[in-house]
Amino acid sequence: MPTISLRGNEMPASPIRKLAPLSDAAKERGIKVYHLNIGQPDLPTPKEGLDAMRNIDRTILEYSPSDGYRSLREKLTTYYKKFNINLTPEDIIVTTGGSEAVLFAFLSCLNPGDEIIVPEPAYANYMAFAISAGAKIHTVATTIQEGFSLPKVEKFEELINEKTKGILICNPNNPTGYLYTRKEMNQIRDLVKKYDLFLFSDEVYREFIYTGSPYISACHLEGIENNVVLIDSVSKRYSECGIRIGALITKNKEVRDAVMKFCQARLSPPLIGQIIAEASIDAPQDYLRDTYDEYVERRKCLIDGLNKIPGVYSPIPMGAFYTVASLPVDDSDIFCAWCLSDFDYEGETVFMAPASGFYTTPGSGRNEVRIAYVLKKEDLTRALFVLQKALEVYPGRTNK
Amino acid sequence: MPTISLRGNEMPASPIRKLAPLSDAAKERGIKVYHLNIGQPDLPTPKEGLDAMRNIDRTILEYSPSDGYRSLREKLTTYYKKFNINLTPEDIIVTTGGSEAVLFAFLSCLNPGDEIIVPEPAYANYMAFAISAGAKIHTVATTIQEGFSLPKVEKFEELINEKTKGILICNPNNPTGYLYTRKEMNQIRDLVKKYDLFLFSDEVYREFIYTGSPYISACHLEGIENNVVLIDSVSKRYSECGIRIGALITKNKEVRDAVMKFCQARLSPPLIGQIIAEASIDAPQDYLRDTYDEYVERRKCLIDGLNKIPGVYSPIPMGAFYTVASLPVDDSDIFCAWCLSDFDYEGETVFMAPASGFYTTPGSGRNEVRIAYVLKKEDLTRALFVLQKALEVYPGRTNK
Repeated sequence: MPTISLRGNEMPASPIRKLAPLSDAAKERGIKVYHLNIGQPDLPTPKEGLDAMRNIDRTILEYSPSDGYRSLREKLTTYYKKFNINLTPEDIIVTTGGSEAVLFAFLSCLNPGDEIIVPEPAYANYMAFAISAGAKIHTVATTIQEGFSLPKVEKFEELINEKTKGILICNPNNPTGYLYTRKEMNQIRDLVKKYDLFLFSDEVYREFIYTGSPYISACHLEGIENNVVLIDSVSKRYSECGIRIGALITKNKEVRDAVMKFCQARLSPPLIGQIIAEASIDAPQDYLRDTYDEYVERRKCLIDGLNKIPGVYSPIPMGAFYTVASLPVDDSDIFCAWCLSDFDYEGETVFMAPASGFYTTPGSGRNEVRIAYVLKKEDLTRALFVLQKALEVYPGRTNK
Repeated sequence: MPTISLRGNEMPASPIRKLAPLSDAAKERGIKVYHLNIGQPDLPTPKEGLDAMRNIDRTILEYSPSDGYRSLREKLTTYYKKFNINLTPEDIIVTTGGSEAVLFAFLSCLNPGDEIIVPEPAYANYMAFAISAGAKIHTVATTIQEGFSLPKVEKFEELINEKTKGILICNPNNPTGYLYTRKEMNQIRDLVKKYDLFLFSDEVYREFIYTGSPYISACHLEGIENNVVLIDSVSKRYSECGIRIGALITKNKEVRDAVMKFCQARLSPPLIGQIIAEASIDAPQDYLRDTYDEYVERRKCLIDGLNKIPGVYSPIPMGAFYTVASLPVDDSDIFCAWCLSDFDYEGETVFMAPASGFYTTPGSGRNEVRIAYVLKKEDLTRALFVLQKALEVYPGRTNK
C-alpha cells in the first residue's frame, strides 16, 4: 500500500470534530446537547436569496466565469461602498467560500517554506491552508487577561525574518470576538509597510460589531493598497454557509493574475450560490438589523451569564458571534469531552469547543473554551445554567 | 510591493483562456464563432435536478457534512453498482467538482517533490493541481498515429524512480476520447502493483463510450484496491458543470482519513449542488439515452467531416466528447488564433483549442487541435465547412 503524504499526517484534526462522536453518542442516550461549538447561524437566509434560487429558469446549470459573474461582483462593489471600501468589479474574485479565498491567497503569495505571522488564538483552518500551501504559520500570543488585544509590535518584529511574507488577521475575530482599534490597525499597517509584507485580512464578520467602535478594514489603510488581500464570505452575514460563496479582494494586479490561474484550474465557483448571494445583497435593511439586534441580545445574555458563574471569565467581545472564556477547570479538552460523555443535568448538556485547538503554542488556552452564540436566548440561558451545574460537579475543577 | 509565489508564475495559462479575448473581439466585429473549444455540454440538465432545486423548502442554507450528505453518497453507490463498481457510502467523499477531488488526492497522497506519471496529451489542469501540491508530473507520450493508445510499459518504467508515487489516467480520455482496453488496464494494474504506486483515475466521462468496448474502471482491477483513487464528477453526465459536485472515491482508509482533513478545513461541499446531483441520479433512462444518442450522432458527424477535409486526420474517439485532430498547418497555436483574429467565411469562424496546451513536451502536438462536439449537428456541419475554408486560405498551411 503506498504511503500518504506527510501533509496528510500534519493536518490538524479539528478539536470540534474530535468531540463530535461524543456528542452523537450523548444524543443517542437521549440527552439534549446545546451546541455552543459551531459557527453555523440559526437565523434564516434572506427570502430574496431563497426566492432567487427557486425562480431560476435556466435549463442548463453551466460553468460560470472563473472569477464569478460580473453582475455579482458589481453588486458587491455597492455593498462594500457602504463600508467605505471602494472597489471595482475587477478587484473582486469570487471564490468557493472564504475557505478557498484563504487557500488561493496562500498558494498565490507564499512559496513553500515562507512564513506568515498570525495572532493567536486563531481560526484553526488557517493552519490547514498553510500546510496545504507548504507555508509556516508563526503565532504571536494574545491573552484573555488583555482582552485579546493586538500584541506589541515588538512581538511581531521578533518573528520577522527573510522568510516572513505576511501577517494574517481576522477582524472582527474568530474565536475571540475582538475588534482591532484604529491605533492597532495603524500599527499593523506600519509593520506591513516597513517589512513589505502581505496583509491577509479575514473580515467575514464585519456585519457583527456591537460597540460604537469603528470598523477599520485593511482596505481602509493608506499606503499599503498593494499589500492587502481581503478574505470575505457571504456565509455568516446572510446565514447561507452552505452555498459556498466567498471572495478574494485585492488591488494588487499581480496577485489577482496569480489567483486567477488557480481559479481557472478549478473552472468556476458554484453557480447557484452566486445567484443566491447576489439576490441576498438585496435583502432589506430590516433583515440585517433584525439579525444584528438578535445577536446583540444574545451577546449580552451570554457574556452576563458567563461572568456570573463562579470562576468563569469572559471579556466582552466587540464583534463576530463568539467569545473565548476561561473556566475553573484543569484542562478544557478533558472538561468539554467530560460534559458530553459523563455529565448531564436533567437530561441536558453543553458542547463547547476547547480553545486549545485555536492555539499553536502548547499549553495555551488550556482552561479556555470558545462559545458561539448562535442559539436562541432561552436556549443560551438554559445552556449557561447547565454549564454552571457541570462546573459544580466536574472532578477536575480548580479552586478559583 | 511584496513578491508573489513562484507557484503563481509556474501555473500554466490555459491555451483556451489565452484565445478567449480574440474570440470576444471577433464577436464584437459581428462574426459568429463556433465554439469547438470547451467541454460545456449544451444539453439540458435533468428536469429532476432542476425541480429539486426549485422545491427546496429550507429556510437556512447551512453547512452540509464535510464528506457530503449521506443520502447522496448512498444514492451514488446504486449508480456505481450499474457499472459493476461496488462501494459503500463510506468509500465516497463528495467534493467541490472533480477539480477539488484531484487537488485533494494530490495533497493527501503526494509530498512536495513527489512525481506522478501521466500519459499525454492530458487535461491541462492536472498540471495546475500538481503545482498547487508541489508535485511533479512526468509524461509519457501517446501519439495520434497510434490513436493515442497506452504507451509501452517500458516507457513508464523508464520514468519510475524513488520519487514516483503514482500514475494518473483519464478514461475515457480528455482530450483524445481514447478508451483504455482491458489489456491496457491490466498493464497499468501490473505496473501499479509492481512499484506500489497510487493509481489516480479520472473517469468522469464513463457515460460516453460509443464503441462496444467494455468500460474498465480502475475500481475493476483486482489486487490494487488500496492503490486506486477514483476521481469523478456529475458535471458532464448530467450537464450540470455549474453546481460543482464531484467525488473522490477510494477503498484506502488511510487516504480517506487524510482527504477528510482537507475536506474539514474547507468545511463543506456546495449544499444546493448536492441536492441537485442527488435528484439528477433519478433522471430516467431516457434522459441518459437521449444524451448518449445525441453524442453518437455528433461524433459521427464530426469525425466523418474532419477526415473528409484534405490534410486533416482524426482517429475515431471511443469516448468522451472530444477528439484530437491533426491539421495541415505550421502551428496550431498560430492557426487557432488566426481563425479568430484574421479569418471569417461569410461572417463565421471557429474557436478550437490548440493541442499544445495538453502536452508538456515542447513541440508536441504542434499541428493538432482538440475539438469538442458539444454543438448541435447542424452547427457542427457548418463549423466543419468553415474550418475547411479556413485551411484553404491560411498562410501557414503545410503541403500534406
